[in-house]
Amino acid sequence: FEILLLPGDGIGPEVVAAATRVLDAAAGRFGLELRYEERRIGATAIREEGAPVSEETLRRAGEADAVLLGAVGDPEFDGGKVRPEAGLLALRRVLGTFANLRPVAAVPALSGSSPLRARLVEGVDLLIVRELTGGAYFGEKEEGEERASDLSVYTRGEVERVARVAFEAARGRRGRVASVDKANVLATSRLWRRTVEEVARDYPDVALEHVLVDAAAMHLVTNPGRFDVILTENLFGDILSDEAAVLPGSMGMLPSASLGEPGSPGIFEPVHGSAPDIAGKGVANPYATILSAAMMLRYGLGRPEAAEAIERGVSAAVEAGYLTPDLGGSSDTEEVAEAVVRRVT
Amino acid sequence: FEILLLPGDGIGPEVVAAATRVLDAAAGRFGLELRYEERRIGATAIREEGAPVSEETLRRAGEADAVLLGAVGDPEFDGGKVRPEAGLLALRRVLGTFANLRPVAAVPALSGSSPLRARLVEGVDLLIVRELTGGAYFGEKEEGEERASDLSVYTRGEVERVARVAFEAARGRRGRVASVDKANVLATSRLWRRTVEEVARDYPDVALEHVLVDAAAMHLVTNPGRFDVILTENLFGDILSDEAAVLPGSMGMLPSASLGEPGSPGIFEPVHGSAPDIAGKGVANPYATILSAAMMLRYGLGRPEAAEAIERGVSAAVEAGYLTPDLGGSSDTEEVAEAVVRRVT
Ligand SMILES: CC(C)[C@H](C(=O)O)[C@@H](O)C(=O)O
Ligand SMILES: CC(C)[C@H](C(=O)O)[C@@H](O)C(=O)O
Repeated sequence: FEILLLPGDGIGPEVVAAATRVLDAAAGRFGLELRYEERRIGATAIREEGAPVSEETLRRAGEADAVLLGAVGDPEFDGGKVRPEAGLLALRRVLGTFANLRPVAAVPALSGSSPLRARLVEGVDLLIVRELTGGAYFGEKEEGEERASDLSVYTRGEVERVARVAFEAARGRRGRVASVDKANVLATSRLWRRTVEEVARDYPDVALEHVLVDAAAMHLVTNPGRFDVILTENLFGDILSDEAAVLPGSMGMLPSASLGEPGSPGIFEPVHGSAPDIAGKGVANPYATILSAAMMLRYGLGRPEAAEAIERGVSAAVEAGYLTPDLGGSSDTEEVAEAVVRRVT
Repeated sequence: FEILLLPGDGIGPEVVAAATRVLDAAAGRFGLELRYEERRIGATAIREEGAPVSEETLRRAGEADAVLLGAVGDPEFDGGKVRPEAGLLALRRVLGTFANLRPVAAVPALSGSSPLRARLVEGVDLLIVRELTGGAYFGEKEEGEERASDLSVYTRGEVERVARVAFEAARGRRGRVASVDKANVLATSRLWRRTVEEVARDYPDVALEHVLVDAAAMHLVTNPGRFDVILTENLFGDILSDEAAVLPGSMGMLPSASLGEPGSPGIFEPVHGSAPDIAGKGVANPYATILSAAMMLRYGLGRPEAAEAIERGVSAAVEAGYLTPDLGGSSDTEEVAEAVVRRVT
């Protein structure tokens, strides 16, 4: 398998290096051959190559079997015209990664640092499936001095394909999909709701409910345990997945996968950012990137047994107390990587 | 003063009746003359008048000094073509109420029922100023079988006037405005940000920060105490104000005001819904509507001293233990109203 590594900015290089060590251990254990190519994205690409992602990098991404990304973002470019994040948006667009999967699960060892009361966060295990290439993100924009507009567009086909991802995922989980929209106000939401209902007919074993986005934002706080799979459009997904991400008490454990059509490479990256304040100190928490590498094995390379081995290794390392400072521990990045490597069996 | 009462659906009539009793007590105490007219909105208007709000009701609203609304919504019309909520949207549009003010404050007596850990919710005291007539709510829509779109539009003037409401409010509070947008993706957000910065120049005594909407959704859960005034556009405001509404542990205490140009009538209503399950039983919690009546006195009728008397009355009644079942008590709607009436001094 050809893997394109895009370590990116801040702590990105450290956590990607840790994840490749764990990947190599899993590859050895399961007889996979992984070949890495490393390229730039984000602020480091702006500095070295003049753009947040080069044409050549986009081309190489398209040729890879999967892309493992670290983090993108640097305060130096805040509010500037060229933004590191544009590299990520271009990559999503070029690879057509229309489904963003973000599992959020409570980690018992961390439940004390959840902002929620223990009884609300215990047992939370949800998956947000966010549409990633439609809506207001890539629609027509007008930006004048006196007036600006964003057009949010969805086609039936776009809704259908991401809905299928959610229903398939629900089958492998607790069999429930909550589709989130604002059908009492938005036309795109009404198309969304109709299409999701059509898709649901092909999944009679999966229970579907519709939840308005304002109600969903409430339920995530008052009763996150009620959700299994949450399916939603791009901008709502951006907001709700970040709201959900803080529930377990640390974003340092949360991976993500962005998937396109079968056969095209997915993007796998931690949910956390580039954390410039601790970059280069060797104390960055690599768990989320390691778990993203596991998602890459499962969804990108079709090797679920290797993915599970890494996930078991992470659980065992966390339970054994290998925690970086952000998790209240004193392990460094290398110690955590090493602890997981030893437990990938 | 001429007040149009729109009790609406579910528990609306009960809580509006309780609020007018308290208003009358305040009017007696401060020498105000309040005249009420009562009309229909929502499901009750659909049933009796064939539309969620009649032309005549909209006309009378325009002639009143303020509108006090109960609740709108009935499961009977869920998913139907004519929706009770359309009455509320029409009212907002006709009155041009562009600024929705939603104060969210922790109530010590209820902090045990907050979904957040006590240390996070204690001392929370924020005000969301949501733009209410622009964005994707009233922009052009297309809705076909295969494709749908919503246009979100803002003009500089629309942003400026709601920003002024937020900065003025911040002056009477802790002097801080967090303007929430998605400027890394949306053109409307970039116009929003530029305009808010211009307005900020007229308020050198107010501190302004910009927060991306995804980050704001996180901070509301992890550290709501950091916010004073939150200023945002219509759809983000819909989501964030509901997310914020659950933090104190009960929506039963949360009022709102929707304000238009000076001199035009505002709409004052509780944040909670029509609660059809307990309608007609006499146990609905009237505090949010009573506090909305106080906002009406302050922002709609320019009588802050009467508003404060009601707010003090509510605090005293809550502290004295007058709590409806939803708050964990056993008082009924009338007992609460009576308890507040006796404490309006
Ligand atoms: C960086 C930004 C454009 C991006 C988004 O909004 O999609 C980010 O918030 C995310 O969720 O990956
Ligand atoms: C009923 C609905 C149209 C409305 C809105 O989205 O504005 C409601 O959610 C609100 O916040 O008052």
